[in-house]
Amino acid sequence: MKKINKKPTPLIYPVPAAMVSCGSNPEEYNIITIAWTGTVNSIPPMCYVSIRKDRYSHSIIEKNREFVINYSTKNLVRAADFCGRMSGRDFDKFKEMNLTPKKGEIVSVPIIEESPVNIECKVTEIKELGSHDMFLAEVVNIQVSEDYIDSSNGTVSMRHKELMAYSHGKYVQLGEILEQAGFSIKKNK
Amino acid sequence: MKKINKKPTPLIYPVPAAMVSCGSNPEEYNIITIAWTGTVNSIPPMCYVSIRKDRYSHSIIEKNREFVINYSTKNLVRAADFCGRMSGRDFDKFKEMNLTPKKGEIVSVPIIEESPVNIECKVTEIKELGSHDMFLAEVVNIQVSEDYIDSSNGTVSMRHKELMAYSHGKYVQLGEILEQAGFSIKKNK
Repeated sequence: MKKINKKPTPLIYPVPAAMVSCGSNPEEYNIITIAWTGTVNSIPPMCYVSIRKDRYSHSIIEKNREFVINYSTKNLVRAADFCGRMSGRDFDKFKEMNLTPKKGEIVSVPIIEESPVNIECKVTEIKELGSHDMFLAEVVNIQVSEDYIDSSNGTVSMRHKELMAYSHGKYVQLGEILEQAGFSIKKNK
Repeated sequence: MKKINKKPTPLIYPVPAAMVSCGSNPEEYNIITIAWTGTVNSIPPMCYVSIRKDRYSHSIIEKNREFVINYSTKNLVRAADFCGRMSGRDFDKFKEMNLTPKKGEIVSVPIIEESPVNIECKVTEIKELGSHDMFLAEVVNIQVSEDYIDSSNGTVSMRHKELMAYSHGKYVQLGEILEQAGFSIKKNK
């Protein structure tokens, strides 16, 4: 396989196209779509979002130190794109995209009702890195749509094919499930 | 949409199932598959991997302060799973999975030749968070397979459908491209 050297760029894909909601009162409620997000620790559960300093949501989250990571589904692709491109200084994105802010269980930030999984987070540290500040946060509650719960045992039953990822400039639907984690060592036995 | 409150857990999906290579000499070359990874900054390009303290790769990366993030493709699903489950203390994973270590361009860590995109990284900080340590790193070079390069202009042309994501215990192939980033505001004009 012949390889070409390329200049360093952010090229880790696929990643989430998470719709991150913020604001502690309806006047400042906002949504920013973020691909620079993920889990950083399991116990306690911690995640991050990296945001440019000049984004409207940056100042809101810096002040309130709370945000919610809402899953993007293929049905939300237009809203996710719009919320990533336009500024909350110019638009009420909830209204513009017909999304419903609903009270968080623990945080004062609204969840996006139309998103099936809403991860409520409290910021523990803001780390300046250059173009972006990384907001490290602890997950304090998760709201999951009934459709994503296995009614037989109450566990999360992900509807993978409804989800989408961000991959190098494209929103890509998840496709076939290839394998279950751990399969390679089960087959070895 | 009725929502159920769930205890806080790491539930941000889909994420990469990155095969992270490490080691500065063939005796310590190793691979660990990591879902807790992503981009944290654009300028300069920075990423992270979070690794449990007791993992073999943790001590190697802590010592050498270099690693390579190698894309997992659907063809590499078995290798990715094995490298995430088994320890380099017990297996030479390159040999066991028939993978080829090839010299990094900038780092002394080997890239995985069979992976189409190899992101060479140098650690800038190790942050203790609890169960995991987060290795923050700067991207110093990227190697990209010719198949992933648009020959007309030399830019990266991602073969999204060859890639896979990790989503709540499953390896999931990427599916249909839904839209190009920015489409929502183009349609508005």
